[in-house]
Amino acid sequence: MGERKKIIIDTDPGIDDAMAIFVALNSPEVDVIGLTTIFGNVYTTLATRNALHLLEVAGRTDIPVAEGTHQTFLNEKKVRIADFVHGKDGLGNQNFPPPKGKPIEKSGPEFLVEQAKLYPGEITVVALGPLTNIALAVQLDPEFSKNVGQIVILGGAFAVNGNVNPASEANIFGDPEAADIVFTCGADIIAVGINVTHQVIMSADDKDKLASSNGKLAQYLCKILDVYYAYHLEAYEIKGVYLHDPATILAAFLPSLFTYTEGVARVQTSGITRGLTILYNNLKKFEEMTEWSNKPSIKVAVTVDAPAVLKLIMDRLMES
Amino acid sequence: MGERKKIIIDTDPGIDDAMAIFVALNSPEVDVIGLTTIFGNVYTTLATRNALHLLEVAGRTDIPVAEGTHQTFLNEKKVRIADFVHGKDGLGNQNFPPPKGKPIEKSGPEFLVEQAKLYPGEITVVALGPLTNIALAVQLDPEFSKNVGQIVILGGAFAVNGNVNPASEANIFGDPEAADIVFTCGADIIAVGINVTHQVIMSADDKDKLASSNGKLAQYLCKILDVYYAYHLEAYEIKGVYLHDPATILAAFLPSLFTYTEGVARVQTSGITRGLTILYNNLKKFEEMTEWSNKPSIKVAVTVDAPAVLKLIMDRLMES
Repeated sequence: MGERKKIIIDTDPGIDDAMAIFVALNSPEVDVIGLTTIFGNVYTTLATRNALHLLEVAGRTDIPVAEGTHQTFLNEKKVRIADFVHGKDGLGNQNFPPPKGKPIEKSGPEFLVEQAKLYPGEITVVALGPLTNIALAVQLDPEFSKNVGQIVILGGAFAVNGNVNPASEANIFGDPEAADIVFTCGADIIAVGINVTHQVIMSADDKDKLASSNGKLAQYLCKILDVYYAYHLEAYEIKGVYLHDPATILAAFLPSLFTYTEGVARVQTSGITRGLTILYNNLKKFEEMTEWSNKPSIKVAVTVDAPAVLKLIMDRLMES
Repeated sequence: MGERKKIIIDTDPGIDDAMAIFVALNSPEVDVIGLTTIFGNVYTTLATRNALHLLEVAGRTDIPVAEGTHQTFLNEKKVRIADFVHGKDGLGNQNFPPPKGKPIEKSGPEFLVEQAKLYPGEITVVALGPLTNIALAVQLDPEFSKNVGQIVILGGAFAVNGNVNPASEANIFGDPEAADIVFTCGADIIAVGINVTHQVIMSADDKDKLASSNGKLAQYLCKILDVYYAYHLEAYEIKGVYLHDPATILAAFLPSLFTYTEGVARVQTSGITRGLTILYNNLKKFEEMTEWSNKPSIKVAVTVDAPAVLKLIMDRLMES
């Protein structure tokens, strides 16, 4: 167990969040030491409930859940919820009974700060929703960005159209100010955007394969996946689903499944492209100082070995 | 002559503007019926002087020059000038004597409106600078976007970094409000961005070839090109120059040298990505209305036959 990478998953479950959590729990490379919750696919209260529920489904109630913030970094109470993607309950409209467990006393950002301080350089935070908790952790503790080992982010639409509107990807759009703080905080960061995750598609056949396996997690997922498939058929006219969150989880401990470029990434926070991510590729020396000058670089995924990622996700979901 | 396409070049000369104007004048496919001037590479006053000068060099003082606006669409008097690219005089710091000719009485936008009304559907406007004159023409005459045959724009950085900063290309950055008005005005529009023009490079060898030709225009260009080569070496570390403007001129009458995609293009007008161009590719049906919804589409160049474009430019510059 000493060799396992400690990860905290910041999550807004969410159907593909459920897949990502299950993949992590079935991956010998990692030790999931906590979940923190955030709004996005659902409101934070429901995200917490779903996180506790998913850990109960997996028989891993030993893992603490810390509830994150209910509002954006700028304290906006109105947050965007993608219940049309994941169902009203975030888990395919299955109306599961409430979980038995409760979140810990500490808030999500407090838990992130605490664990990063406790295990300096060892914690990988995988952020699957808007980046508010992470930005609050950065604000709470100026040492957080140094203490945290790595932050792996599902977020951004680098040089492609977004999924909320042509400019913006949902997790960044959910809290652009938070995202810009995190991208420029100086931590070791990998951003996996929809330019990459849109290449990792679980087909209808793959779902049948999942259904025919005996794994209890696979069986559970098959119950909640229909809503997610229906959304993709409607919005993208594809008979498959994008594996945003599970693909990103793999980047946290099997980074060589992806290739990366490095540069300063900034987030637009106003106007019609609010939530847009722009990565500076360092190819031109600009005449003037820019908003990208003298900021820390991050790694941004540019390609993915999609067949290998899909196979790993399928294999791990069908275990046990 | 009846078969020739009537074009008006809106220009801020500028070294590559000079090349573009000369290519047009030596192209049997087109009849240059006027130049309108705009700030960008130089201030508008100097753009007018340089436009008159270039027509005198080419022996084409029959072509009218209409001076465009000196300020942005929002009446900002402070405009961005790229004299570090083209020299203080816009033409390679050669300090040519002032032209003998004068601009016509009509302003640039008035001339555009007049000519489009005079030859409905027949005029192609090739816009090589910020789009202020074109936006003013749209504002001046609600019929302009219908009357004009086509507007071919050098502008935008579609899904690539800009050349003013990581977000924004110089012509769009020069007047983002004007660009957004033009992109959404409903005219038949082709936008050629630096994602495409950065593929059309004139090497140092090509310049030597130009120098060894007997053409008077080629000889003239060789005098002004050094500054432009020096800038590219400094800013991009390449021993060649991007042929933005001459490549765009060819798109006006030999469109099949490029391939295009179609969609709604909008311009961000605020914040750190002011001047950014975002094209909606129509691949996703968004849940919410977006700022791209129910707007007219334009054509955006996505690929270019760079060797063919370079050869045509070289051939036509070496004529006469």
